[in-house]
Amino acid sequence: MTPDERLERYARLAVEVAVNLQPGQFLRINAEPEHLPLVRAIGRIAYERGARYVETQYRDVHLRRARVQHAPDESLDWSPPWTLALVDHMVETRGATIQITGESEPELLADVDQRRAQRMRPRLATERLLDAENRRLIQWTIVGYPNEGWARAVFGEPDVERLWDAVITATRLDEPDPIAAWHAHLERLQARAATLDERRFDAIHFRGPGTDLHVGLCDRHRWLTAAEVSVDGVPHVVNVPTEEVFTTPDRRRTEGTVRSTFPLAFGGTIVRGLELRLEAGRVVEVRADVGAEAVRAEMATDEGASYIGEVALVDGDSRVRKTGIVFLDTLFDENAACHVAWGQGIPTALDGGEEMTAEELADCGYNESVVHTDFMVGGPDVSVLGVEPGGAEVPIIADDAWLLS
Amino acid sequence: MTPDERLERYARLAVEVAVNLQPGQFLRINAEPEHLPLVRAIGRIAYERGARYVETQYRDVHLRRARVQHAPDESLDWSPPWTLALVDHMVETRGATIQITGESEPELLADVDQRRAQRMRPRLATERLLDAENRRLIQWTIVGYPNEGWARAVFGEPDVERLWDAVITATRLDEPDPIAAWHAHLERLQARAATLDERRFDAIHFRGPGTDLHVGLCDRHRWLTAAEVSVDGVPHVVNVPTEEVFTTPDRRRTEGTVRSTFPLAFGGTIVRGLELRLEAGRVVEVRADVGAEAVRAEMATDEGASYIGEVALVDGDSRVRKTGIVFLDTLFDENAACHVAWGQGIPTALDGGEEMTAEELADCGYNESVVHTDFMVGGPDVSVLGVEPGGAEVPIIADDAWLLS
Repeated sequence: MTPDERLERYARLAVEVAVNLQPGQFLRINAEPEHLPLVRAIGRIAYERGARYVETQYRDVHLRRARVQHAPDESLDWSPPWTLALVDHMVETRGATIQITGESEPELLADVDQRRAQRMRPRLATERLLDAENRRLIQWTIVGYPNEGWARAVFGEPDVERLWDAVITATRLDEPDPIAAWHAHLERLQARAATLDERRFDAIHFRGPGTDLHVGLCDRHRWLTAAEVSVDGVPHVVNVPTEEVFTTPDRRRTEGTVRSTFPLAFGGTIVRGLELRLEAGRVVEVRADVGAEAVRAEMATDEGASYIGEVALVDGDSRVRKTGIVFLDTLFDENAACHVAWGQGIPTALDGGEEMTAEELADCGYNESVVHTDFMVGGPDVSVLGVEPGGAEVPIIADDAWLLS
Repeated sequence: MTPDERLERYARLAVEVAVNLQPGQFLRINAEPEHLPLVRAIGRIAYERGARYVETQYRDVHLRRARVQHAPDESLDWSPPWTLALVDHMVETRGATIQITGESEPELLADVDQRRAQRMRPRLATERLLDAENRRLIQWTIVGYPNEGWARAVFGEPDVERLWDAVITATRLDEPDPIAAWHAHLERLQARAATLDERRFDAIHFRGPGTDLHVGLCDRHRWLTAAEVSVDGVPHVVNVPTEEVFTTPDRRRTEGTVRSTFPLAFGGTIVRGLELRLEAGRVVEVRADVGAEAVRAEMATDEGASYIGEVALVDGDSRVRKTGIVFLDTLFDENAACHVAWGQGIPTALDGGEEMTAEELADCGYNESVVHTDFMVGGPDVSVLGVEPGGAEVPIIADDAWLLS
């Protein structure tokens, strides 16, 4: 593949499979300026497929750094009216959005005031966007774009070609027919979710070095994959790559200790050696070799930010894991290993969840928050067990292999 | 100057002199992705000066190309609600805006349907922005950023350093104290405007090869410079560089023929060898060696698009002219030579114009349009004469020298 062919193929995967843009739809792209070549390829393909309008909303970590250093404190969580108008238009017209990751400067905010850095998010706009995703009103996806800064963070040198090779492996772009390969892969994940659904586990138990964590499940939980269908019936894939099956926990019944198995890049900093202790669902202790402050600051965003909103299972057969690379990007790393997320839960992972009232959701232990940060807890040394309502434990993953059938 | 010092100095000129951002203000930057280094420098300096929020709105000619080729015809002049919300916020909060030019691909739309290309503008948002500028509700400016594509268009090779040298000369960045040099320069231009105001000319007469044009002036006209003051009393400079004094004509009294003395880059195409014939103020004939179609298409935008809205005088002493370069960018080229513009007039160039009703403006021959395209008509071979109410002609510029005193 020439670089042009590679970019074309990747952009087609994003537009045609991942977000599955329909003729006449509005498309929003959220990207860094460093992602420009992919933005242009996606935009061109979108218009060729009949997009009505394509808007790119650029986020710039350099401007964020200047802002967090100087802007008035009370302005940091402000949602600009134009950002709200963009989200509202996307929701009202049943549009689609592609977020591009692969942060060009994943540590640019590491040395700033973490309380201010974590406060700096357009809260109302984020709530509306998350709500629209949860209610399946829009098609959405996330893809990564290899760039120099990201490659430098991963390899210590800007070896973009090596990063592209890893991304190609992770996203099955090396298959003769990547689109067919994707459909087959999603079916395999959906079969895993169906098996888990049949088991009706009461909790998931992670056991490994530094980790002994029970994640309680509501009896109405269901296991999902990244293969989604919008309320208008448009199938799409919300993460590319994806290797996970996941559900939303009963936030009151997560207990124990957990040690992160991967570094975690978020909010302009990289957290290493993260360890959490949870009591009655709440994170009561945060420790880390580096970056604990950023985690504590994010967990202070709202009440739900220190409760668990997602549990996800990934085995060693993952294409992402097979690259052998720590991507320092959650889109990729969370698909290399089992993970849990603090912050917002997933209403569609509860039977009838989309139609539930806030009270009914709370009855299921659903967790409400404006943040949602996945961190990796799985790996070769971590066993995953399903806990039956009577207390018996059934192996799901051991020695990196998927065992449940 | 190192490249970093140069960028810093240029960004400071843009923020501190050109747009003169005040603490607590909102700043909008409009730029191409290729202008990223200047965007970041401006954004940082703006936050350091106390900006409340900085938003960058990127325009991308590659996405525009895909859109003009594929999007529904009736969508092309649509103003996205988020663009309107951004303009409205800027106006309501008395914000500021910096537009960055130096198009990276000035001919990328040359081969598309010019009717569709010219139709493709957010009409309502453009009207609101022009109205806010005309009513001096916001501080605004335009600056150029040297980039490879622009340099390639100018020199036939991506010699960005040579383009920087020319931009430094044109913008007085080579002065020991550029800010003091700017203030002195603006005073000199303001003195020219005052001299012209005293003369109360009835018309301006351009005479040269292919040009014999009378531009009528209303008796309430006044001559302006790019040194503006907002309604809140904040001085700013709406173009950097600027070398012109200008006013708004009586649109009914422009007569004759005019030959453009520079190529004209606009809307993704370059027009060369442009010649216009005007009768009773209206352009009745458009000829060009290349690009006449784009001009005709823009002039079909609305009724005022084929009338003249501005006349501006620049002599050979201009810093821009002295670079000896055709920049293929109106911000620079219009400051190398006398020019006129088809499209929207300038209400502030009429005595009491800001408070006039539409009817009073029409009585002065003010021209209303959503477009405003300057083209260069002056040069060493073109004389400029002021026509007195009695018909006598007074030399203003001859042999490239300013004569009026």
